[in-house]
Amino acid sequence: MNAIDLEAVYRKYIDCLNERDWENLGQFVHEEVQHNGRPLGIGGYRSMLENDSEQIPDLWFKVELLVVQATWVACRLRFDVTPKGDFLGVAVNGRRVTFCENVFYGFDDGKIRDVRSVIDKSAIEAQLED
Amino acid sequence: MNAIDLEAVYRKYIDCLNERDWENLGQFVHEEVQHNGRPLGIGGYRSMLENDSEQIPDLWFKVELLVVQATWVACRLRFDVTPKGDFLGVAVNGRRVTFCENVFYGFDDGKIRDVRSVIDKSAIEAQLED
Repeated sequence: MNAIDLEAVYRKYIDCLNERDWENLGQFVHEEVQHNGRPLGIGGYRSMLENDSEQIPDLWFKVELLVVQATWVACRLRFDVTPKGDFLGVAVNGRRVTFCENVFYGFDDGKIRDVRSVIDKSAIEAQLED
Repeated sequence: MNAIDLEAVYRKYIDCLNERDWENLGQFVHEEVQHNGRPLGIGGYRSMLENDSEQIPDLWFKVELLVVQATWVACRLRFDVTPKGDFLGVAVNGRRVTFCENVFYGFDDGKIRDVRSVIDKSAIEAQLED
């Protein structure tokens, strides 16, 4: 699978998340997916995403940057959202925040298996200081 | 400049940081470099790095993952360090912490011009809770 194919698969995965199309998540995510070293499996990964969508009703994944090489996709995602309560331990409580997630996805058999993500907590805190 | 060349330039940039070789920073960093949207210029960028090295005497940049495409490098850097005082607003005070930075570098004329970085503050906080 070349870089263009992997980019296409990844963009369909993002569409799947934005459509809350959990039934089709397995088309893009490996059974044995890990997230920051935790072996969630696709069930745990789906639960994490469903919980995020519950806590952030207007959750929308926007691709800001995409870098693809061999079996890796690196993406800078931008969010402009209103989490209901706490998010990453920050009391957002329905205020609007914008922040990025820089995340690497290792693919295996054309599916996401190894996710290494960092979310910009400092940016969220800075916006709520005002 | 192809992906292999860009990777080589990037790895030399990391060596330059690890050697505190500030005099040669301009070989890798563009005069008009931006960091997370702030137009630091190379002078401000160097000051930021010198300050980081002062606050974290054992600062060492270790490349965990590297993804290169066209004019972009995406890197997951791992740190295993002992910041002297506060770091990202967290009172680390000489304790040892390990954490990642997921960062994108946009190159222009073979030099780093657009840095978009996220550091894993949540991971640092979690280690200091014990």
